[in-house]
Amino acid sequence: MTADAIRINEVGLRDGLQSQPRHLTLDERRRMANSLLETGLRQLEVGSFVSPKAVPQMAGTDELIASLTLPANVQLSALIPNMKGYELARAAGIQTVAVVVSATETMNQKNINMSLEQTLAVAREIILRGRAEGVRVQAYLAVAFECPFEGPTPRARVLDQAAQLAAWGAHEVVIADTIGAADPAAVRKLTEALVAGHGSELIACHFHDTRAMGLANVFAAIESGVSRFDSSVGGLGGCPFAPGAKGNVATEDVVMLCEQMGFSTGVDMRALLRSVEVVSELIGSPQGGRAHYWLSNSAA
Amino acid sequence: MTADAIRINEVGLRDGLQSQPRHLTLDERRRMANSLLETGLRQLEVGSFVSPKAVPQMAGTDELIASLTLPANVQLSALIPNMKGYELARAAGIQTVAVVVSATETMNQKNINMSLEQTLAVAREIILRGRAEGVRVQAYLAVAFECPFEGPTPRARVLDQAAQLAAWGAHEVVIADTIGAADPAAVRKLTEALVAGHGSELIACHFHDTRAMGLANVFAAIESGVSRFDSSVGGLGGCPFAPGAKGNVATEDVVMLCEQMGFSTGVDMRALLRSVEVVSELIGSPQGGRAHYWLSNSAA
Repeated sequence: MTADAIRINEVGLRDGLQSQPRHLTLDERRRMANSLLETGLRQLEVGSFVSPKAVPQMAGTDELIASLTLPANVQLSALIPNMKGYELARAAGIQTVAVVVSATETMNQKNINMSLEQTLAVAREIILRGRAEGVRVQAYLAVAFECPFEGPTPRARVLDQAAQLAAWGAHEVVIADTIGAADPAAVRKLTEALVAGHGSELIACHFHDTRAMGLANVFAAIESGVSRFDSSVGGLGGCPFAPGAKGNVATEDVVMLCEQMGFSTGVDMRALLRSVEVVSELIGSPQGGRAHYWLSNSAA
Repeated sequence: MTADAIRINEVGLRDGLQSQPRHLTLDERRRMANSLLETGLRQLEVGSFVSPKAVPQMAGTDELIASLTLPANVQLSALIPNMKGYELARAAGIQTVAVVVSATETMNQKNINMSLEQTLAVAREIILRGRAEGVRVQAYLAVAFECPFEGPTPRARVLDQAAQLAAWGAHEVVIADTIGAADPAAVRKLTEALVAGHGSELIACHFHDTRAMGLANVFAAIESGVSRFDSSVGGLGGCPFAPGAKGNVATEDVVMLCEQMGFSTGVDMRALLRSVEVVSELIGSPQGGRAHYWLSNSAA
């Protein structure tokens, strides 16, 4: 293990809320954001700048941003699909943008009706412009382990794509297990190669807990030297129409895992569990991982 | 990774049923056992020989054993608390017995009203007699990571106790995370030392999923060279009075993890998921891990 601090990027306000059938109002999103700002989390993906027709849950992200009072050390990011999104994000004061490239041809076609080549070209433009303008760019590689259409994603392809994104100047390459199909042995192999090739600072991981391997995958990546992880408060992000389908790995569980193993996350677990309660109330159903078991047995 | 086969010891009929408020009848336990015997699982902990006053759920384990028709390669085991239990188990035809030593003084006192020294003495007698009579003895070290009364269990103590049990001749030393408090870094350190000291064949692990780290812990142990694991069908074994409290790591999830990483378990996942359905029906509430997500996306 090479890191002693783990950086968590809280994605509940975007990846979490985007999959909810109940659309939160701007006031509700602000309440959720404010509860997260009290936890010590320093990176929040606050929303996205996509067409409100396509993703109505994220409408008004600029207004949400304008209404927040941020502690000095907090960094907001937003997902953008293209250069127009980049400009809207910049106009809203965003300094960190996230762009997504799916690792397989079919996923790009089905998801955004573009070829892999086109998606990579968009990512390249945004990365170059971000570099020129001092904007941090997180480049996501989605379905990096398995694609719902093409099956297992070849590791060599992901390594090539990551190298390309890094060469263009991405500040971070985020390996995303979009459908929650990765296992820790696969994570170990891929992240070891990525950290060896690009260093620990460039690599982040984004896991879902669909197959109950979420924390196993986080652990495997930590063992490889990864220290940046996406997660969502309460594990928000599962599909509410598929009973038992799990969302992003829960922030409180990632914090528990890391802190119990001796890593520092900077997160106050009690404040985080209060945020889980706020989210449960807003969503209208109980959310949450298992960190309360840890809290009740520890001095934290 | 040093193993290419993972041996699973199915403990649902004992550890799983023992915590249920609804006591299954002998016929129901037989139905559950028969569904498990169709899965390819080769090691079943079928029950225990303890006072039926103390654990009424396990009454009649001898009758249950007598009523089963076993495939040739299946090995039944039973938990025994003392020499009387050993004799009852032997009379019922059991060739593998499990004895439990809690790693901390307080847990022995609270759990069975004996000192650690007394518990170790009982284990020693049973191991020596088992060795003399050709009976396989699985020696459990309970609360091997954390004790609900004493807090974290010192690794050096567990290593000493394991060495003692091994020196007496235990066929297997089972490291049990009784309250589901272990993290994968702790598992990695302890099991690495145990495998280095005693070899892979002597060491097994027993995890609960209370903190969502069940599969992470199995993975960490596999990385250390462990190839023997306890698990329970459907994850049976949680306390039904504590909402969300999880039981043993689910057999179907351990099978999924191992098979997906390329290890062979000998288990037929479809038959195992049918057994989960049988168990859910008998218990009267849905049980089960997340392996169905894997099955629906794989050729298995």
